[in-house]
Amino acid sequence: MEQQELFVKMVLDNWYSTVANTNKLLNSLTDEQLRGDAAPGRNSGIYLLGHLAAVNDRMLPLLGFEDQAYPHYNDIFLASPDKSGKVMPEAGELRTFWNETNAKLEKHFKSLTASEWFQRHTSVSEEDFAKEPHRNRLNVVLGRTTHLSSHLGQMLYLKK
Amino acid sequence: MEQQELFVKMVLDNWYSTVANTNKLLNSLTDEQLRGDAAPGRNSGIYLLGHLAAVNDRMLPLLGFEDQAYPHYNDIFLASPDKSGKVMPEAGELRTFWNETNAKLEKHFKSLTASEWFQRHTSVSEEDFAKEPHRNRLNVVLGRTTHLSSHLGQMLYLKK
Repeated sequence: MEQQELFVKMVLDNWYSTVANTNKLLNSLTDEQLRGDAAPGRNSGIYLLGHLAAVNDRMLPLLGFEDQAYPHYNDIFLASPDKSGKVMPEAGELRTFWNETNAKLEKHFKSLTASEWFQRHTSVSEEDFAKEPHRNRLNVVLGRTTHLSSHLGQMLYLKK
Repeated sequence: MEQQELFVKMVLDNWYSTVANTNKLLNSLTDEQLRGDAAPGRNSGIYLLGHLAAVNDRMLPLLGFEDQAYPHYNDIFLASPDKSGKVMPEAGELRTFWNETNAKLEKHFKSLTASEWFQRHTSVSEEDFAKEPHRNRLNVVLGRTTHLSSHLGQMLYLKK
């Protein structure tokens, strides 16, 4: 296996297993549990799920794949904290948002060659990328895995 | 920058920034807050800190660096859940355990060449490694970053 392919596999395996662990938890939670708070006074499950799905949706343009499908959720789940008074979608809608967005990401992930993973993402300029080649697409997935994992740790507390 | 060096930088940057975020949180928590539970009936801060430090201590032999310094903590923090009735060290001792272990890891991390990062770790045989070259040292750090991040998410709830 080539070096680049090996490294892409390492990073994507870590991403897919963290998403799989999140799905396993989500499938074990009722909508009512999801509406609860991870801990007293902390984020609700639906806010965290909407936040994670919006982060993934925004990865679609960031990685140069396609436009965001749900940009109207950015305001609720990325620009605002939980309990901001904004009306949140139902738990079922958020489950669909999460699953659809991950399916799109997976389709695009599988279509990239190893060397395409090492191209710059869309929020870094060509000049900056020449100096900082670690700011590539794969690095976005690396950082997003850490972010997802942090909130997954919190969402585990929704399970009674 | 060579391909391998670039990968190593990407993974280590992600590790160091997650450790730095953990240190920032730990420095903002009093020992009393650390003795509290992340959420009602969940793991205490000192259990989580001991668990994370023991996982890092065990990385020392796993990555072929040196023996564990605190193997007697494995039973409390790796083989037993929290609230098992086992006597836990004081918060201050666990802070020292965490800091000392991370300093050792950092020293060893900095001494490895890029190609040494892609050598097998000590719990995979030569035969298996020939078939599964992703089971290298760097992949251990990748997985441990996700693990650390998950518990960091929970420990953030210790902060009032």
